Amino acid sequence: MASTEQRLQELEDREAIRELTARYCHAVASGDGPAIVAMFTDDGIFEMGPRVVSGRAELEGFYGAVSASPPIPFIQNHVIEVAGDGARGTCSVEIRLVQDGEAYTAAGWYEDTYRRVHGSWRFARRDFHVFHWVPLKKGWG
Amino acid sequence: MASTEQRLQELEDREAIRELTARYCHAVASGDGPAIVAMFTDDGIFEMGPRVVSGRAELEGFYGAVSASPPIPFIQNHVIEVAGDGARGTCSVEIRLVQDGEAYTAAGWYEDTYRRVHGSWRFARRDFHVFHWVPLKKGWG
Amino acid sequence: MASTEQRLQELEDREAIRELTARYCHAVASGDGPAIVAMFTDDGIFEMGPRVVSGRAELEGFYGAVSASPPIPFIQNHVIEVAGDGARGTCSVEIRLVQDGEAYTAAGWYEDTYRRVHGSWRFARRDFHVFHWVPLKKGWG
Repeated sequence: MASTEQRLQELEDREAIRELTARYCHAVASGDGPAIVAMFTDDGIFEMGPRVVSGRAELEGFYGAVSASPPIPFIQNHVIEVAGDGARGTCSVEIRLVQDGEAYTAAGWYEDTYRRVHGSWRFARRDFHVFHWVPLKKGWG
Repeated sequence: MASTEQRLQELEDREAIRELTARYCHAVASGDGPAIVAMFTDDGIFEMGPRVVSGRAELEGFYGAVSASPPIPFIQNHVIEVAGDGARGTCSVEIRLVQDGEAYTAAGWYEDTYRRVHGSWRFARRDFHVFHWVPLKKGWG
Repeated sequence: MASTEQRLQELEDREAIRELTARYCHAVASGDGPAIVAMFTDDGIFEMGPRVVSGRAELEGFYGAVSASPPIPFIQNHVIEVAGDGARGTCSVEIRLVQDGEAYTAAGWYEDTYRRVHGSWRFARRDFHVFHWVPLKKGWG
């Protein structure tokens, strides 16, 4: 049976992890690369299909390039499992973005691994899976 | 005045109910009918306008048919009221789906009744209301 | 170090503030002006670019006009900071609406200030920022 302290801690951890993913969205939408990178652990990984972005330097290159025309992500359906200083989560995402001057819409989900570092939750790994990534005019049909 | 135990329990119940609706979305999007049905009570009901799907056998038929071309739901705006082993909730939903090879978009809301069964929260009833359910190219105008 | 009571209170406050924004969405979507206005403090402010709607009478005029053809908002990515009886938050929003018989889509974010009044959280100020507000057929490109 978990103690009151353990139960409070887990509730606070879940809040902090949800906020981490929310702050990620705001930082992406405002094109703030350094803020995004600071949300990852030093050995953090962002994965998208065959593309693997690993460690601080690569993350800085990847998210630094975002700032020119930032996508707008909306995260939902968050499932979180906390175990001590580590956690795993799955969340859905819808993204509005512009490519070659054209409106695009995307939908997918993240499989996340979180880690507590000096008292703060960070992304140890974000594995991004895409349902579709298409021009809005074409749609996902 | 609620005790610390009661307040912790309600916070945990709210988390568990939010996760139930999140896991529902992931299960629908991956076309996992059995996982969806297991989220309902044995006498669970899914309602959509005049259509009423009631009890395990009917739910299996209804959600089993989903797997061919699963819709992708995104749940938001969740309001929850817990009372002991029962709870009620209202949440908004946006759905991306394909019908006859064409991209459709839907928006609506669920009126949910949840029940705690052997320590786990389940759907006792999902009443789905539709704002619109239209081809993306046509839109909701 | 925060006490158990303080930690529980903050978790409950965060839940109540999230529900405030969720109930706001449901009230907007159902065109219930009085319900929306009651979620603001008596000196509440809604701001959208140069437009400032301030105090109960102006809020009643502004949200009363909504009911004819209500927009449907979806709030996500909520970051909340509680300090006693006040709080600040940032959240993303997607909106589906109809203008001149045509489907419109909007995306933006709210910078909120919340205040606890007689035990209930309300909006002291909602500052609404728009990413785009466009016909669905045109898109955000």
